[in-house]
Amino acid sequence: MPANQQILLDNRPTGDAVASNFKLVSAETPALQDGQVLVRHHFLSLDPYMRGRMNDAKSYAVPQALGQVMGGGTVGEVIESKNPKFSVGDKVVGMGAWQQYSVVDAGQPGALRKVDTKHIPLSAYLGAVGMPGVTAWYGLSKICEPKSGETVVVSAASGAVGSVVGQLAKARGCRAVGLAGGPDKCRYVVEELGFDACIDYKAHPDAKSLYQALKEATPDGVDCYFENVGGVIFDAVLSRMNAFGRIAVCGMIAGYDGQPLPLLQPQLILTNRLKVQGFIVSEHMEHWPAALTELGTLVATGKLKFRESIAQGIESAPQAFLGLLKGKNFGKQLVKLV
Amino acid sequence: MPANQQILLDNRPTGDAVASNFKLVSAETPALQDGQVLVRHHFLSLDPYMRGRMNDAKSYAVPQALGQVMGGGTVGEVIESKNPKFSVGDKVVGMGAWQQYSVVDAGQPGALRKVDTKHIPLSAYLGAVGMPGVTAWYGLSKICEPKSGETVVVSAASGAVGSVVGQLAKARGCRAVGLAGGPDKCRYVVEELGFDACIDYKAHPDAKSLYQALKEATPDGVDCYFENVGGVIFDAVLSRMNAFGRIAVCGMIAGYDGQPLPLLQPQLILTNRLKVQGFIVSEHMEHWPAALTELGTLVATGKLKFRESIAQGIESAPQAFLGLLKGKNFGKQLVKLV
Repeated sequence: MPANQQILLDNRPTGDAVASNFKLVSAETPALQDGQVLVRHHFLSLDPYMRGRMNDAKSYAVPQALGQVMGGGTVGEVIESKNPKFSVGDKVVGMGAWQQYSVVDAGQPGALRKVDTKHIPLSAYLGAVGMPGVTAWYGLSKICEPKSGETVVVSAASGAVGSVVGQLAKARGCRAVGLAGGPDKCRYVVEELGFDACIDYKAHPDAKSLYQALKEATPDGVDCYFENVGGVIFDAVLSRMNAFGRIAVCGMIAGYDGQPLPLLQPQLILTNRLKVQGFIVSEHMEHWPAALTELGTLVATGKLKFRESIAQGIESAPQAFLGLLKGKNFGKQLVKLV
Repeated sequence: MPANQQILLDNRPTGDAVASNFKLVSAETPALQDGQVLVRHHFLSLDPYMRGRMNDAKSYAVPQALGQVMGGGTVGEVIESKNPKFSVGDKVVGMGAWQQYSVVDAGQPGALRKVDTKHIPLSAYLGAVGMPGVTAWYGLSKICEPKSGETVVVSAASGAVGSVVGQLAKARGCRAVGLAGGPDKCRYVVEELGFDACIDYKAHPDAKSLYQALKEATPDGVDCYFENVGGVIFDAVLSRMNAFGRIAVCGMIAGYDGQPLPLLQPQLILTNRLKVQGFIVSEHMEHWPAALTELGTLVATGKLKFRESIAQGIESAPQAFLGLLKGKNFGKQLVKLV
């Protein structure tokens, strides 16, 4: 059995998450029992929701237990199997956590899924054809419900979720406008992903300037907003919403380290008769098959593009994760383990 | 033709609305043309939405034109008719505005409706069996959609809308909790209207104390919130919402004179997967018949109670309206003109 390097949650953050909240250890992988398989992880997924799990507060996510391996999505290869449905060499996606190997009870529903890597790269199952892609698909299709010709705005537009939101919006005949941090990300969002416009929020540090930029990018107002960020960006977009607009609240990363995120003009929800709805994609598993079918087809045919930031080695996971919280990633943040 | 005393909007408020924004004038009522009727108003309705119309800002309500009679709902009696469908003596409800008489093109759809006053008092058509009642019915039935056993909270609970929200919630098998200003209103809400609890927000001037009182009144959390007020009350209730809760945003009277109403923890919309939706009842006319049928039956059978604050004479309308904005009314605010 190989030695298995793991990252544990050692202690909880007070304010900003820091590297010393995590601890790298080495463990042995136990021998397989009947029904189990041993998976060697090729990629580990890093996602903003993990920050919430580091706290001990009441939230939608069960807190990550201290002293345990940080949970998270993984893709990899079966290297040993005592389960008749899985063979050595199978490529699989699961929740293998922040470690190099995992022993999986592969018979448990949803624990492990074989994936096709002929047409879709393995890492994409952690991004555009995985949880982030389905998050984009669900929030856009089921909460925003955009009609052709409407304007869809998404924050964190170059990220794993936002990049899919905008491209799906374009595929549905909408005007897609992104918000992203920095000229490189904005150029990518427009030139590579095909958004109609992208606003570099870092170039607009005050609310008035941000509103003005948004106004120029959304001449017909905003019908749908897909929120990943919160704070001043939420306020600015709220001011541009059209009557009967829909806002899918997917994330508010600007507040994940405890920063206050006041919404200054909630009365706009009333005056513009808006629907503002929060959601967690894991609570809507019934929609995953339809979403993954559409997303997989779009990726396989080259119509849905994505970009990855890849950190090397399990030991790099904490710093890569902290960078993700600060927007240092460019596209889906992964850790490559093989 | 009788002289017709009217209240005009003379100038727009800067900050708080004040009595000098209005002007009392006397006009002659023109002779009737074919199809028209002359209505003598018995009661004029005063409603919070009118404050929004006094501004010239972009809002859901078209601004009230300066120098024109303030718009508003009225009930009264036909005293002259050149329309075959209306006879002298008919009791009618319409949008007769802040004046003693109105000449109505009675053939226009929705302009004038005959009402039964055998089983329902005429004034109730401006309250529980009128726009405020339908507002309560729509927000509760179509946005909150409470299930039996759930907890419904409503602010401005003794008012024209809030009082109906809580009583309908009770009729649907819910726990109904109100928020109102002062011990008299709270006692009325519990003892007369049958709410399970009512919190006097004036007795809890700080957010912590208000939250604690709300926590005690909602031991199982809050599933539905019907928002009429905004500000610190919205924040407090948001902190008590259960997962998948629904918030119908009907009004935010705390900000109608321009006060800031920041929402301090909008991230709770995400973490509790809430739906927050604003609405205007006049945009959902298709639901009025069903709503009025239920509300009329409940009032006629004594199962839906209401209370009125009645100001005397058209000249009292401005002060009564300003009092309504400050919560000085107790129940539906009317002006009696006959």
